[in-house]
Amino acid sequence: MTLRAAGIIAEYNPFHNGHAYQLSQVRTQTDADLIVVAMSGNWVQRGEPALMDKWQRAQAALVSGVDLVVELPTTSAVQPAHLFAAGGVQVLAALGCQWLAFGTEHPDLDYGQLMAHLPTNPATFKRFDQTYATLFQGYLRDQTGITLNAANDILGFFYALANRQAGSPLRLVPLPRRGSQHNDQRIADQAHFASATAIRTAALADDWDAVRSVVPETTLAALQTTQLTSWEDFWPLLRYQLISSAVTDLGALYQMREGVEYRLKKAALPATSFAAFMHAVKTKRYTYTRLQRQATSVLLQTKPAEMLAGPQYLRVLGYNAVGRQYLHQIKKHVALPLVSRADREWQQKLGALDNRAGLVRSLVTGVAQDDGRIPVMFPDSQRLSRKLP
Amino acid sequence: MTLRAAGIIAEYNPFHNGHAYQLSQVRTQTDADLIVVAMSGNWVQRGEPALMDKWQRAQAALVSGVDLVVELPTTSAVQPAHLFAAGGVQVLAALGCQWLAFGTEHPDLDYGQLMAHLPTNPATFKRFDQTYATLFQGYLRDQTGITLNAANDILGFFYALANRQAGSPLRLVPLPRRGSQHNDQRIADQAHFASATAIRTAALADDWDAVRSVVPETTLAALQTTQLTSWEDFWPLLRYQLISSAVTDLGALYQMREGVEYRLKKAALPATSFAAFMHAVKTKRYTYTRLQRQATSVLLQTKPAEMLAGPQYLRVLGYNAVGRQYLHQIKKHVALPLVSRADREWQQKLGALDNRAGLVRSLVTGVAQDDGRIPVMFPDSQRLSRKLP
Repeated sequence: MTLRAAGIIAEYNPFHNGHAYQLSQVRTQTDADLIVVAMSGNWVQRGEPALMDKWQRAQAALVSGVDLVVELPTTSAVQPAHLFAAGGVQVLAALGCQWLAFGTEHPDLDYGQLMAHLPTNPATFKRFDQTYATLFQGYLRDQTGITLNAANDILGFFYALANRQAGSPLRLVPLPRRGSQHNDQRIADQAHFASATAIRTAALADDWDAVRSVVPETTLAALQTTQLTSWEDFWPLLRYQLISSAVTDLGALYQMREGVEYRLKKAALPATSFAAFMHAVKTKRYTYTRLQRQATSVLLQTKPAEMLAGPQYLRVLGYNAVGRQYLHQIKKHVALPLVSRADREWQQKLGALDNRAGLVRSLVTGVAQDDGRIPVMFPDSQRLSRKLP
Repeated sequence: MTLRAAGIIAEYNPFHNGHAYQLSQVRTQTDADLIVVAMSGNWVQRGEPALMDKWQRAQAALVSGVDLVVELPTTSAVQPAHLFAAGGVQVLAALGCQWLAFGTEHPDLDYGQLMAHLPTNPATFKRFDQTYATLFQGYLRDQTGITLNAANDILGFFYALANRQAGSPLRLVPLPRRGSQHNDQRIADQAHFASATAIRTAALADDWDAVRSVVPETTLAALQTTQLTSWEDFWPLLRYQLISSAVTDLGALYQMREGVEYRLKKAALPATSFAAFMHAVKTKRYTYTRLQRQATSVLLQTKPAEMLAGPQYLRVLGYNAVGRQYLHQIKKHVALPLVSRADREWQQKLGALDNRAGLVRSLVTGVAQDDGRIPVMFPDSQRLSRKLP
């Protein structure tokens, strides 16, 4: 029997009840035999370190019913929505998924209608990036009457677009989201669902009563027993990098446009925390998210060339028995090489950026991320969580 | 009356009884009206952070009788002996000093004889650097019968050489050194003199009984009330820099020759301290000092172009009444610009490397080094030791 897979693009930062609800929906709304997730690694789309590392988050996903977790490489994961979406679609398509399920504010959005009214000049897309988002949304509204405002509607649109550009290998399964909006900052009383943002804030503040109501037990246990990281943990390193780097070297890093390197460098010395730093550099011109991604470029010393390639490999983070069977089924004809163990060659070449993101994380947590790590196997999990000396 | 100055090139890391003894010798053996010191700043010749910052060390020198302290810029201070010596001679000559006094193991060494037998091919000097030291010493021994082995004899030779190359503006005053050898690691019982190396080790170990016997009271008090720094304090930053930098970027830093950047990068992750790191990278091929200077290049992200220029300015760190009078006397015709206050232009251009060295120090200590600092005035010292927020 040939297994058929539904794919999800996620961060699971952390895995919460809304994610669990989404998994149950995927099972009822598709004929998939398993669920495959392309998940961000140690740095996430908003330009932040993940609260828990990629292995811990893969573990949480497997416990809650995901069958196979593959890393969305940093080159796609820490990017504006359209590049994030494109990278996720490439990974899932390369893994032979048949469906792409995603949560959205308006699951009844007419993607066909939107796709039919894209700008016909391909150069418009080539030039497209976050800066043009407003113009682009305006164009679509004029053409179709559909307003793309909500964060996950926009992401859904980019999934549809990336899928179309890849020759439509995936069948789209838009799903309603349960609970709060993506950007809600707080967990509401008696809620069973909350945004990941609100959950991260509560977890970092040790507000476990609030967190308990909106995440599975295993996520709660993991959050309570793990060294959680936020930008504040990396602030001394970012500050040092901004201070010691020549401004021309900063300017050569990814997304460091319009002289923002001067602004970042100037704000580094007086700021005593990442929050104070962000407060100092924030203007109407730059979104918080964009500034955080630029800060990530500085911390990881990311060069433009490293970020221009889409996903080049399929790094397996974890699987259960069905996931393993599926890997066996596809391994002969996957479109990108499967990487189950990060050898020296991968760490130094194709995987250099992911490896670096993990190394910098490990400077704070002491937990190795790529060197010697093998995929999480569930339920027979023999996780190798080697402490750095 | 025209004041006549004797110059000393020093690190005062920290100022000890041997330095005090040297000052008394200079007063008796020259007709100088004042003593001017060209002193290393926040990073010293062996490629280490100074134990105390340049302002604290200038203060200690002034208390003990030095009249004027000028910074030996990092471009000369963190260099092999011949470049260190050349920079010091340039600074003292530019300040109009008439004598250059220096401690040496063999004050009766015949510098005239050595100078008369230098290799005649100028290209030999151009190619000269530490790597060729042994060959060069062998050549001089063959030519003159004089063996240059001891550290301060070699330094003295380079002072003589630099002075000769500058047209002999300074009269050399070789002085006997009191007490222990430069490299003695421990303070001997009942000693009144000890090497700066031994004193640093004792001070970092809070062994104040030992330190007390070999330094002036003011040095002791300063050491006991100051946050002393060593490489260990900067290890987390150096480690992060080695891990996050591309090996090609490391290779483009100053003195990063023969692929040593691979060696440094590889050793960074497993090492849990600077000492362990140095132990891992040390081989017969590289001296400890050279490796520390390379580590300094990485920490301060020093480019070769920044280090190729000799001193470009005379940064005044402190003075007493006589020193001030002398500054007034020479200010119209100094060969390099006097810098008493580090303005924004100096910090960003000519003084960028010194400024960066101070900023990185201040990340550990919280004490600003250049921004807003004014020279130490003794005895009416109104030191501005502004804490960073």
